[in-house]
Amino acid sequence: MVPEVPFGPAMELAGIFVGALSGGLAAVRKTFDVFGVLVLAWAAGLGGGLMRDVLIGAIPPVAIANWLFIVTALAGGLAMYFFHPRLVRARRTIAVLDAGSLALFAVVGTIKGLQYDSGLVAAVFVGTITGVGGGVLRDLLTAEVPAVLHHRELYAVPALAGAALTALLWETGLLTNATTALVVVLVFALRLAAMRFHLSAPGPWQGRRKRR
Amino acid sequence: MVPEVPFGPAMELAGIFVGALSGGLAAVRKTFDVFGVLVLAWAAGLGGGLMRDVLIGAIPPVAIANWLFIVTALAGGLAMYFFHPRLVRARRTIAVLDAGSLALFAVVGTIKGLQYDSGLVAAVFVGTITGVGGGVLRDLLTAEVPAVLHHRELYAVPALAGAALTALLWETGLLTNATTALVVVLVFALRLAAMRFHLSAPGPWQGRRKRR
Amino acid sequence: MVPEVPFGPAMELAGIFVGALSGGLAAVRKTFDVFGVLVLAWAAGLGGGLMRDVLIGAIPPVAIANWLFIVTALAGGLAMYFFHPRLVRARRTIAVLDAGSLALFAVVGTIKGLQYDSGLVAAVFVGTITGVGGGVLRDLLTAEVPAVLHHRELYAVPALAGAALTALLWETGLLTNATTALVVVLVFALRLAAMRFHLSAPGPWQGRRKRR
Repeated sequence: MVPEVPFGPAMELAGIFVGALSGGLAAVRKTFDVFGVLVLAWAAGLGGGLMRDVLIGAIPPVAIANWLFIVTALAGGLAMYFFHPRLVRARRTIAVLDAGSLALFAVVGTIKGLQYDSGLVAAVFVGTITGVGGGVLRDLLTAEVPAVLHHRELYAVPALAGAALTALLWETGLLTNATTALVVVLVFALRLAAMRFHLSAPGPWQGRRKRR
Repeated sequence: MVPEVPFGPAMELAGIFVGALSGGLAAVRKTFDVFGVLVLAWAAGLGGGLMRDVLIGAIPPVAIANWLFIVTALAGGLAMYFFHPRLVRARRTIAVLDAGSLALFAVVGTIKGLQYDSGLVAAVFVGTITGVGGGVLRDLLTAEVPAVLHHRELYAVPALAGAALTALLWETGLLTNATTALVVVLVFALRLAAMRFHLSAPGPWQGRRKRR
Repeated sequence: MVPEVPFGPAMELAGIFVGALSGGLAAVRKTFDVFGVLVLAWAAGLGGGLMRDVLIGAIPPVAIANWLFIVTALAGGLAMYFFHPRLVRARRTIAVLDAGSLALFAVVGTIKGLQYDSGLVAAVFVGTITGVGGGVLRDLLTAEVPAVLHHRELYAVPALAGAALTALLWETGLLTNATTALVVVLVFALRLAAMRFHLSAPGPWQGRRKRR
């Protein structure tokens, strides 16, 4: 009934780790101490799942209850704390990994929402939130406007598309291991294409457009 | 037992739409793209109800599960995205509508809290939060200090008064369609009076007062 | 089975009051009006417990349902509103009281998490969050980077240590009134020592260290 995402657990841990790197980097840039780096790593790696679990009633959220997830996020924070000059140079690699985690979080989050009987609309929402929520929490904790709201390239839209497609497949009984994997790949490809070709949502509407 | 607010559903949708306009306007001012405008519209129109539902255990929250509510919020965002120069000139009209939505959200939110057996005190809190929470979420997502905390005119106080009055009427068995409508009208009138006569809460206390 | 913290209720109220003072002070500094001062006092005094209760499913949270807690927080806000020049001079006393509330919130929060069957890891998390969450919410609502993330002296670490110790004692069946009180005292002492001797977590790692 409930499809397992192939390589899902390994990919989910990878997603948490990559999210944690982005949180650790934000903390390092604010010259936080090691504790602040770990908190930001946790928030960025697990914040999306935290919001999802609160919204669907999966209490306590895995973000505070699953020790393997937590250790993975903290490892990402420590890696960024110790190796950030080197990791910053690997930003292209990290961006690709981040696209992978966005894809997987969106699909896995939607499926978890459906498993908790949240309904199709809510499942699409929580899937998208799972994908982008970690970054939002990271930015709120560093007093920044969430990057997802003013990304130059499409970021939330691929997650939303993947969540909607997952819910549609579920509703029509077509959600299998194979189709699930396919959606993950599609979201991943869409995000990579957005980065490669600078795809963006239409900016401010004023007859002519201004872009910040 | 549970009174229906007369014209409640229509007014609630109007409230969500008006809240969404305020969120869309905040996003347009930050030159977010169309996606950011829609997210802010959703946050401002449905954020109060989202907080209420999480606090009373109404899972999943209507903010992510009720498609009519969501479509209404997104429509408000799109309206602001396309017509904001014209809508900005209609700000007096929008402020009046916003007062109406504040009134209705406060009363409806309190009743929902009571229906979920939250107790009187909690119901008053969630009613007030339903009224002002959308604006708080909007401001947090744009990295602003929530306007409700430094409004020049009373904003949360009318909502709080309406929530308290609703809970009192419920407790004494006097909450009917008629008294419910009356409370909505009272909150609406109090907020309009605050705007018209510049009623404000006492500012900083320093012997003499300074006002920012 | 569930140990009562000796003097727990009185200490918890003291903790809420002291937290509320810190929130009121933040609001006074932003020249909020009296309503804003009360909201910040509530957020700082009860925000940690609010997050804890949402995360463990204790609905409605005591932060909106327990009138004695709420009145205590508002009293703290009013005290700061009227007497802040005098209270600011008492900041050393307040810092000591705050250390006491940190200690008690962390221990009480952990025990509540265990009582709600959240598991050891989650209980440690919610205990720590109970200790530091009020300050985080206070800082978010004033659009500041949460102080806990860039404190010069250890703040969250004592809370985390106390939460972990509490969970460990629970797991091994050694959590009694006496050991509970002991953990509270240890956390209190650790925080005081951190203030007195300027103990801090390692800052940014760059071969040599820079400190902001």
